[in-house]
This record gives sequence, structure tokens and C-alpha cells, in this order.
Amino acid sequence: MTESSKFFKPFPQSHRIYVPGKLFPDIRVSMREVEISDPLTPKLGIYDTSGPYGDPQKKIDVNQGIEKIRKPWIDARKKNGEPLTQMQYAKKGIITPEMEYVAIRENQKMDVLLGENGSSITPEFVRSEVAAGRAVIPCNPNHPECEPMIIGRNFLTKINSNIGNSAVASSIEEEVEKMVWSVHWGADTVMDLSTGKNIHETREWILRNSPVPIGTVPMYQALEKVNGIADHLTWEVFRDTLIEQAEQGVDYFTIHAGLLLSYVPLALKRTTGIVSRGGSIIARWCMVHNQENFLYTHFDEICDILAKYDVCVSLGDGLRPGSTADANDEAQFSELDTLGELTKVAWAKGVQVLIEGPGHVPMHKIRENMERQEQMCHNAPFYTLGPLTTDVAPGYDHITSAIGAAMIGWFGTAMLCYVTPKEHLGLPDRDDVREGVVTYKLAAHAADLAKGHPAAHFRDDALSRARFDFRWNDQFALSLDPDRAVDFHDETLPGNGAKES
Amino acid sequence: MTESSKFFKPFPQSHRIYVPGKLFPDIRVSMREVEISDPLTPKLGIYDTSGPYGDPQKKIDVNQGIEKIRKPWIDARKKNGEPLTQMQYAKKGIITPEMEYVAIRENQKMDVLLGENGSSITPEFVRSEVAAGRAVIPCNPNHPECEPMIIGRNFLTKINSNIGNSAVASSIEEEVEKMVWSVHWGADTVMDLSTGKNIHETREWILRNSPVPIGTVPMYQALEKVNGIADHLTWEVFRDTLIEQAEQGVDYFTIHAGLLLSYVPLALKRTTGIVSRGGSIIARWCMVHNQENFLYTHFDEICDILAKYDVCVSLGDGLRPGSTADANDEAQFSELDTLGELTKVAWAKGVQVLIEGPGHVPMHKIRENMERQEQMCHNAPFYTLGPLTTDVAPGYDHITSAIGAAMIGWFGTAMLCYVTPKEHLGLPDRDDVREGVVTYKLAAHAADLAKGHPAAHFRDDALSRARFDFRWNDQFALSLDPDRAVDFHDETLPGNGAKES
Repeated sequence: MTESSKFFKPFPQSHRIYVPGKLFPDIRVSMREVEISDPLTPKLGIYDTSGPYGDPQKKIDVNQGIEKIRKPWIDARKKNGEPLTQMQYAKKGIITPEMEYVAIRENQKMDVLLGENGSSITPEFVRSEVAAGRAVIPCNPNHPECEPMIIGRNFLTKINSNIGNSAVASSIEEEVEKMVWSVHWGADTVMDLSTGKNIHETREWILRNSPVPIGTVPMYQALEKVNGIADHLTWEVFRDTLIEQAEQGVDYFTIHAGLLLSYVPLALKRTTGIVSRGGSIIARWCMVHNQENFLYTHFDEICDILAKYDVCVSLGDGLRPGSTADANDEAQFSELDTLGELTKVAWAKGVQVLIEGPGHVPMHKIRENMERQEQMCHNAPFYTLGPLTTDVAPGYDHITSAIGAAMIGWFGTAMLCYVTPKEHLGLPDRDDVREGVVTYKLAAHAADLAKGHPAAHFRDDALSRARFDFRWNDQFALSLDPDRAVDFHDETLPGNGAKES
Repeated sequence: MTESSKFFKPFPQSHRIYVPGKLFPDIRVSMREVEISDPLTPKLGIYDTSGPYGDPQKKIDVNQGIEKIRKPWIDARKKNGEPLTQMQYAKKGIITPEMEYVAIRENQKMDVLLGENGSSITPEFVRSEVAAGRAVIPCNPNHPECEPMIIGRNFLTKINSNIGNSAVASSIEEEVEKMVWSVHWGADTVMDLSTGKNIHETREWILRNSPVPIGTVPMYQALEKVNGIADHLTWEVFRDTLIEQAEQGVDYFTIHAGLLLSYVPLALKRTTGIVSRGGSIIARWCMVHNQENFLYTHFDEICDILAKYDVCVSLGDGLRPGSTADANDEAQFSELDTLGELTKVAWAKGVQVLIEGPGHVPMHKIRENMERQEQMCHNAPFYTLGPLTTDVAPGYDHITSAIGAAMIGWFGTAMLCYVTPKEHLGLPDRDDVREGVVTYKLAAHAADLAKGHPAAHFRDDALSRARFDFRWNDQFALSLDPDRAVDFHDETLPGNGAKES
């Protein structure tokens, strides 16, 4: 049993609030409220992904797992018969508690800032976006600890952080701490990319303690089951892995079902071939067996499993460019076209869909990516890695990619997968995770400002006024990383006096 | 007498080359050539701003100053009568040695990569761009140590680094070291923003040891001369300061001549008023005296002085927005219109012109800035600070601004003034300068890739091939910051073996 403060220092001038639902009065949506010393600035309800870790009132016991806030809703649905996916409920015109939760969460108390009718994000709007496939709510019923969130172009731009990259055994508490550290800084989802011996157990601990959706690449575990030999992979091993992970509660799966046998030769002409790990595994399997990708040929059965557990499919881009030289080439766009075809298959079975995107793209080719994805994939939400806008700055790829991420977010990408300073060079440590998450939070926020999200500019304006008035503590409290802002300030002008003048 | 290695570790697998001129055979353009272990990759001639500090053969003695490479050209011009500005030569159809130097430098040995006729950047093209006012070559004849460089939208995107911010006395060698550290990482120009007691002497040491153009804000020194009291400023004090600095060899002056008395009230409606230091000084002077800005009323005389010394004028944006809330407002654009009017006055006298720009601008308002600047200022080169694309990330403003800088560079901005992580919080130290310069180098390079500079992609592609082949040392040597890339790599996988596999 530990305090949340074990994991990190709480944000200054902040406290946790819970906003109740109207359609579903037992909903309590967590937000961070910041107290500003200027009486003219309204209290801001800041979007908060830290779950119970951000509430000093909650005791955390990683051996018990965190509170299962969605359990009553899930149990009620089970009682009423076979539960449906969020998309199936949406298509039937039913607003779920998850949908109202998401609407309140996205609003960030905008009703206070803009008046009762100031926001267009209503539970009904959420439902209609999910029904249309333009947004997803990843929330496996077997992960009842997860606070509902939405990924779609008409909502706040989200970011993903990756953990568990190491094959070296680490303690369960260390893995949980990485996840908690990510959500403290604002990660909206976390992908567990663990390899090695303790995949299942590590994932179990992460799921039982995670307030955000957890994504995985099931192929990584399937490969472990055949001792790392891609040639030995079979549909049966993969299927069993999907079921195993869906039973545990994973909220979305990256599946490289669009990399067809006929596309592999297209990658041979490239500067950097195939750089996606999942893509390399599948390409090798296809070539060795001279057979079509079994994820493609079994996609119907995959969708049946995903629909049963309401796991979102994140259609992986195994042919994403690994260099700016390979951006927007035939290999990349051929696979994208197939992802569009698979999107329709998944939707027909009620499965929520994300589409994964590049990678490495120079600025002038970014818009084409977004437009082509929308067109070919029928407006399913786009989930991109960066993209990196130049290849010449290893050690700074959180920045080369934040440029591309902010731009593609503005153009409509719904979720940005973070890149840390260690990209291409090594494994991120705790500081790298913080640097990567905060960099992506600022890129996502810049995108929200540019795409005109009605709540986005209030925080900028409140911070700017604090800056102009030399209200240093307010400036720190409103910033994405108050600890760093305070540290940098104090290097030059330490002491409380300097913070008030 | 010291070695260049006193200042920094030399770049790996690199040596200095000097490319001779054709029109002017005594020209020797310095570049860094990188040796790649792959025989298929041509040797790249990397643009190098480090001057003699990047050549281990040269001995450096800061008491003597560095070699005066332009002295023979300047002396020859003096012998032939009154020397003209680069713009005046260009308008007469005369190609100067500076123009050929710049053409060779910009090419980065593209003739080797693309064949003899592969490059459009000829000395004649340089002349025509300078004649049209679309580019400037800042090179005061009293700064003969300066290696010629060009700032214009049809050339490589340049970056500026600021030094000397501290009022605290520091030793001369420390100030010179800050400048050398900036040019090592790739700063194309350096602004000396010194305040305090030893302004003149500090600047003298910087100029005598700087291989890049030096810019200043003469108002800062003029204000010191009236004991920091803006009300006491006069045209005469300012004029004498201009002459003093031009005699020393300053290559460009920021002058806030476009902030008119009638614009001051426009700034009062803003979220963050006037944040430019020069702008605040002038606004105060105008209000106290209820008189028009004396920099505007004396602009003709200012241009006569600048023309005599071939000092570029960088028309300052005293009303640049200090927050995204104030971007593209009436105050900002009114001043920009006046800068356009002043551009024509300066050009008529043969004075080269840069236009300074914001500041803080959300992404969706960046393009309007560039288009309006081009239109109102007759295609004079734009020189922007960032812009920052959100205000919520103090401590990360090198990144919030690199997003805007890369975009506006792509749209046509010729030079980007760097922002360090300490922006808004404190004074940058050595690490912050490196972080700021490298971040801006990558933003400028991303812009060059996007705007299709013919030489830009060779470096990305060579590095990407090295990455794909696991040629780690080649990857490091081609990166903007090899030291960091090596350090990050070695944290996870130290040892030489890991660099070759």
C-alpha cells in the first residue's frame, strides 16, 4: 500500500476534481483543477490521464490493482444479455456510460468557460462519431480499471507512450512505474511492447494498474511462443495469443494484416527496406512460405475475436517508410489501400478501427499522407508515429518528429505515438520517457490550437497572462512540466521573491 | 595561442577542405568533408560555419584575432575608389568575391553529386538575388574576418544564435567562447545582445574573432549611454552609437523604426502588450514625448550611415506578439506595413534589408505571416524568432518554436532566430546554447528538405543508408550532433563491436 506521491511529485496549485454525469449520475470524470491567483482567470479543468495516481486521497496497492470504475456498467450490460462493442451500441443509437464519460472529459469544464451551450461535444456527438467509425473508445470489458477516452479527429489530439521494450527481466513494480510515469506526464494510451520471458505476467500487472487503454502487438508474443523463429509462426499460435491477451483486457491490438505478399518486392527498391518489426516478421513469413499473409487471410476470424472482447484493431503499417527517402512510395500507399479494405471488414463486424501511419516524412509530403488515409480508409482515425521530418538528427528525434506530429495532428491525425530522444540509438530511460511524453503533449496541444478545439486556447491565454503579470507560480502551475519550469527559473533566479516580481 | 580543440571536440571522420573560386581564384571556401566507409556514398561537403576553429591546422590567438580573409578584396575595392554595398555592386551587374564565395558555399559540392550543371546556384544567380533585394550578404568591410554567407529564401535556411545576454561581467575569453561554441554547432550568424559596462570592448573581441556575421541591437548600447532611462534617448546618442558600432564592423543592426506612435494604443488591447525589449523602449519614448519614433523620422540619415559601411538593416518587429493570443493582430500587421515602406527607403540608398518577424503564432496562422510579409515587404528576406506554436510548455520552448520555425522556413523564411530551453525562464548556459542551435539546425534542414533545396536530401539519404546497414560510426559522423548520438548509443550498447554490427 503506497501513496501516489511515491511515483511522482504532485502538480502545484492543483487538486483532483470529479465531474458527475447527467445521463449516468454515477459517472465521476476525473480532472485536475488549477488554482490561479488572478481572480479574473477561471479555474481550468485540465484533462488528466493519471487516474488514481493523481489523487492524493487514493491509496495505491499494485498487488491489488486500482479501482475497477467501469465494473458496474459492464456488469449491467452482461445482465441485459450479450454485451456489444461500443461501435455496435453507437450504431443502434445507444449512448453508453463510456460515451458520456468521454463527452464530459473532452469538455474540460468548457461549459464554465463558454456557457452551458458553449461546447459541441455532447454524449450524442460522441455516439455519432463512434457509429460513423470516425472515433474509437478502446475499452475492453476485461480492463474495467480503464477510464474511458476517445480517439478521433474531432476530439483532443491524443498521444501514446511505449513501455516494456526491454528483454531484460525487470521487477513488476518497475514496469508498473514506467506506465504510471507515462500517465503522470499525460500519455493517453500506453503500448506494452514487452518481449522476453515474462510477457504475460508483466502485462497482467500493467493492466490491473492502468487507468489508460493498453495496446500491444500480439505478434511479438506469438513469436516468443515459436522461439523467435518467424518461419514457424502459424495462424493457430497467433489466434491463441489474441484470445489470451483479449481475456486479460488489452484494449487495442496492432495487427499487420495489410502487408500482402505482392507488396514485399516493392520494399526491396527502397533506401531503408522494411523497418517495422511486425512488418519484417510478416514479410519474412510470406517470402519463406510463398503464401499470402495469414493475418490477411484470417482477418474475418480475427475480427470475430476482437468483436467479442471489444478490442480495437490498430491496423499496422508494416511498410511504413524508415527514412524520408522512402516516404509516400508505392510500398507504403499500397499497404494503406489494403488497410482501407480491411477497415470495412472490421466495421461490418462492429470492430472499432485505428489506422497506423508513418514514420519518416518530409514536411511537404505530410498532408498527402493525411488526405490519402482519410480517403482510402473512410475516415477511420489515423494513429501516426511522428512523423520524423528529417533523418540527420539522431539524439533529437523527439524534436524532428514533434514537428511532423504537430502538423499531421493539425491536419486531422487523432493520436500521435511518441518518439523519445533515444530513438534509433538505444532504450529510453525514465528521463527520456518524460521528455518524449511532454514533447508530444506540446505537439498535440499545438495541433488542438491550430484545428480550433474550443477549449485549447484557454490554457495558453491563462499562462500568457500570468507571464505578462510576472505571476511566476501561476505560470509554472499551468505549464505542461511545472517541475522543469521551476528548475530552469531557479537556476538563474532562485528564491520565492523572484517568483512573485 | 591555442588549438581549436580547446573549444570543442572535432567532428568525427571529418576534415576541413577549401574549395577554390573560378572567377576569383584566391577564394578558398571552407567546408567539412565527411568520410563514409561505404564506397557507394559520395563524400559530402557539409556547410561549415566554424571558420578557423574547425580547422585543426590553424592556431587561434584570441588576442590577435582570426585571419582577415576578406582584406585583399576590400583593399582592392578601396583602391578603385569609394566602395559600394553588395546591393549596389549587384545592381550595377558586378559579381563580387563575396558573391562567388557564397555560391560555392551554398552548393556544398553539389557539382560532384549532381554533375557540373546540377546546381542552379551560380555567382550570377547570387548577384541577381541580392540586386532584387530577395537576399542579403551581411559583410561590413570593417569585419574582414567574416566568411561571406547569404540570407534569402532561395538559399539554405539560416539560423541565428544570441550571446552576451548577461549584465554580469564575464571575461573576454568567455564571451568569445560562447560565440565559438555557437558556430561549432552551426550558427550562421550571432547576435551580441550584451548589456552592462563592457559593451564596446566585448563586441570588439567578438568581432575580431568571429567568422560569421555579427548582429546587434544598437538601442541597447544607446540606452546604457543615457543610464538606462528611455526618456533621455536622443537621435544624436543613437546616431553616434550606430557609427561607433559600424566602425567596429557589426554586420547587421536591428532597428525598430516601424513602431509608430499611432500603433502604441493598438498594443494596449492585447493579452501580452509589448514584449520586444527594443519595442518597449521606443513605445515608452514615443508616449512620454508624444512624438513620432525618432528612428522613423531619421530613417533617411540612418540609411546613409548603413550604406557607407554596408551594414544590413534588420527592421525589428517591436510589436511582435508575445503570446499566441496576440498573433496576426492589428498591432503586428500595422508595423509590418510600415516595415515594407521603410524597405523601399533603404533599398533606394543601396542598404540591404532583413525583416524581423514573430514570435508566438499558432500553426494555422503561420502561413498568413509569411504571405503578408512577402507582399508588404516586397520579398525582402524574413528573419523570424521561432515562432512558438503554443504557450503551455515553458522549459520546452526550443521545441514549441522549432515546430513553427520549420514550417515558416518551408514557407520561405530565410533565417530563424533560435530559442533555447531557458526561454521565458532564465539565461541559457552552454548546454542550452548547444540544444538551441542543434534544434534550429534540424528545423532549418527540415525546411530545406521540404522546399526542395537540391543538396539537402543527400545527407539524410547517406545517414539513412548507414542506419539501415548498421554502420553506426557513419551514422554518427553524418548527424548534426555526433557527440550526443554516440553518448546515447553507448548508454545502452557501449563498446566498438556494437557500433559495427
